[in-house]
Amino acid sequence: MHGFIGVHIGAGNHSEGLSREYKRLCRSACRVGVSTLLSGGTSVDAVMGATVALEASDLTNAGYGSNLNINGSVEVDAGVMEGETLAFGGVGAAPGMCHPVVIASELCKIQSKGFVAPSGLVAPSLLVGSGATKWAEISGLSHALSSSLISEKAKRQYHRNKRKLQPFRKDEDFEMVQPPCSEDRLDTVGVVAMDAEGRVSAACSSGGIALKQPGRVGQAAIFGAGCWAENCGARGPGDGFQKESIAVCTTGCGEYLVRTGLAQQLAQAVQFCDDIATVRLHSAFTEKFLRSPLLRLVDETGRLAGAIVLRGIGTAEKVEFLWAHSTKTMCIGYMVAAPESKPKSHMSRLPVGFTPGSKVNVEGINLNLNSELG
Amino acid sequence: MHGFIGVHIGAGNHSEGLSREYKRLCRSACRVGVSTLLSGGTSVDAVMGATVALEASDLTNAGYGSNLNINGSVEVDAGVMEGETLAFGGVGAAPGMCHPVVIASELCKIQSKGFVAPSGLVAPSLLVGSGATKWAEISGLSHALSSSLISEKAKRQYHRNKRKLQPFRKDEDFEMVQPPCSEDRLDTVGVVAMDAEGRVSAACSSGGIALKQPGRVGQAAIFGAGCWAENCGARGPGDGFQKESIAVCTTGCGEYLVRTGLAQQLAQAVQFCDDIATVRLHSAFTEKFLRSPLLRLVDETGRLAGAIVLRGIGTAEKVEFLWAHSTKTMCIGYMVAAPESKPKSHMSRLPVGFTPGSKVNVEGINLNLNSELG
Repeated sequence: MHGFIGVHIGAGNHSEGLSREYKRLCRSACRVGVSTLLSGGTSVDAVMGATVALEASDLTNAGYGSNLNINGSVEVDAGVMEGETLAFGGVGAAPGMCHPVVIASELCKIQSKGFVAPSGLVAPSLLVGSGATKWAEISGLSHALSSSLISEKAKRQYHRNKRKLQPFRKDEDFEMVQPPCSEDRLDTVGVVAMDAEGRVSAACSSGGIALKQPGRVGQAAIFGAGCWAENCGARGPGDGFQKESIAVCTTGCGEYLVRTGLAQQLAQAVQFCDDIATVRLHSAFTEKFLRSPLLRLVDETGRLAGAIVLRGIGTAEKVEFLWAHSTKTMCIGYMVAAPESKPKSHMSRLPVGFTPGSKVNVEGINLNLNSELG
Repeated sequence: MHGFIGVHIGAGNHSEGLSREYKRLCRSACRVGVSTLLSGGTSVDAVMGATVALEASDLTNAGYGSNLNINGSVEVDAGVMEGETLAFGGVGAAPGMCHPVVIASELCKIQSKGFVAPSGLVAPSLLVGSGATKWAEISGLSHALSSSLISEKAKRQYHRNKRKLQPFRKDEDFEMVQPPCSEDRLDTVGVVAMDAEGRVSAACSSGGIALKQPGRVGQAAIFGAGCWAENCGARGPGDGFQKESIAVCTTGCGEYLVRTGLAQQLAQAVQFCDDIATVRLHSAFTEKFLRSPLLRLVDETGRLAGAIVLRGIGTAEKVEFLWAHSTKTMCIGYMVAAPESKPKSHMSRLPVGFTPGSKVNVEGINLNLNSELG
């Protein structure tokens, strides 16, 4: 009876030179999540804690150091889902938040007490813009707010990107659209966690695509798109009433992830699967994203996404942790919740010869949490 | 070869005294949509035109006269989807917009030219808050903006609702949640249309629930939740290669419609159905909404929603137009696109003995557009 945490810091084209730093950050976030679990925190607390650690780093496109929008300011998205109640909280295009995942967690927690509060009031699921930031203030969450979110790195990137856009200045659509989802800066973050009782949660946080339109909301804020968590119950006597739980985070071009509802779709595909989960995940990612009819207007090279999937069987005894990406790289980390445990991290790479956007690379590990620590 | 338009102005508990006015408004919106179709407009233009007419009326909770949020101001949601390309544009929690559907249409049109513009820029799908309003300004859509959106009726309702909330003032969650989805003011609006070539679109617009939190986004802005439009193609030789098209609008408590992705789910259930579409719609509404596992925390009496569904078979020769609601009433209208045609309107009522939220009432009409005008 332990728990588990898995993190990613984006699917994209991670710089070779920063690879060690990325991996170190993943391990460090895992430690934060595990320490939350070991001190009796819920899986929501754990995903929130680990995501806060990722948001705080300027390596990631989340919280501090996020991509700048076309006006040179930061607006962030985040979402949190809890598997037992299916409660979800999201914030979108919110200014002045260094830790949007804290606000999303609070919305999720309020909703998990019942979609309708005892007073008969409905819990909002998605808050956006300055309304979200003000709600955070009146809800006593000022520690998650900050007026300085712009890192030196993000500022340099902003000026470089703006110069690149100059040739398009005369494009009549220029003011109305936003730059392509390049592979460079898709490094949004996501965390999945399972507590000792097998309860799962998922969280994601993102600064959105560089030079985005102010007010643009991506997948992290949208139900079913950026994260999913579900304690699925047991399937029946044939399966020995073994309970199952699933948590998923996605990353990539927000418009396409919202359109395909990818987190929910991948969760549905993998839950209660009898074949090897990697096979199922591979076909679901291919069918529901790479070849989705909902993306028929999207060029193949734009079909860039990644996902992490946590599948728990029984009461957290058996765990599968998988990652999938159609981008060149994806950086992940994971850790078993136990005092003697050590975090692991990995830079996953699309096999040589695969064109990004055309095929998905799926890898994963199987853990027996009891023997793992035996 | 003609076309069709269907509208609703909400599922709720429409006042008996205003019933004639509601129905008149539906017919008048139908006329706007049809005149757009007859003058060669696309189905996107038609749903936009009819929705603009509905937004302009203070009878509806959309555009001018929308529900006020807890701070006494108006923030609106809208969405438009186009069936041929599956393009979608949404605006959420936007201040100062009398016609949010115009902005959503423009986002949809830009996206329908390709999710990635010729310059390589990604078309944003969802814009929220003041960012959406500013985007409308720079995109030359100032005619859809207005600083005076508050009707006398909405103001009176706001003060009445606030007084009702006084007893809950001490509720610790008071500042963080919002009033229940009462049956009174769910009267958001939606329009479905099919042009002479059988191309469908859907649009929806909403002021959201009364006294909502600023920044709260409901179903109208969210892909798959508030509206759906799809030219599904043909099924195969067995069906004589008959093409089919579907357009759906939903209305009700936004949090629950987003969670169940109801517009998309209903469209999927009804398309290519061999049994009578009303039967299929009845079972889909029951399974995907009233008994949805995603609403397991929602009390039965809160499961209030409605939908209109347009199904076109062949090249707009045959049309089914259906409406479904678990609320006491739903007001709808429809009209064939032809110069001699007259709009029809109807106040649909849940049968006596049905408890709102527990069962769905489904009604509909079948039209052969050629003989109808013969």
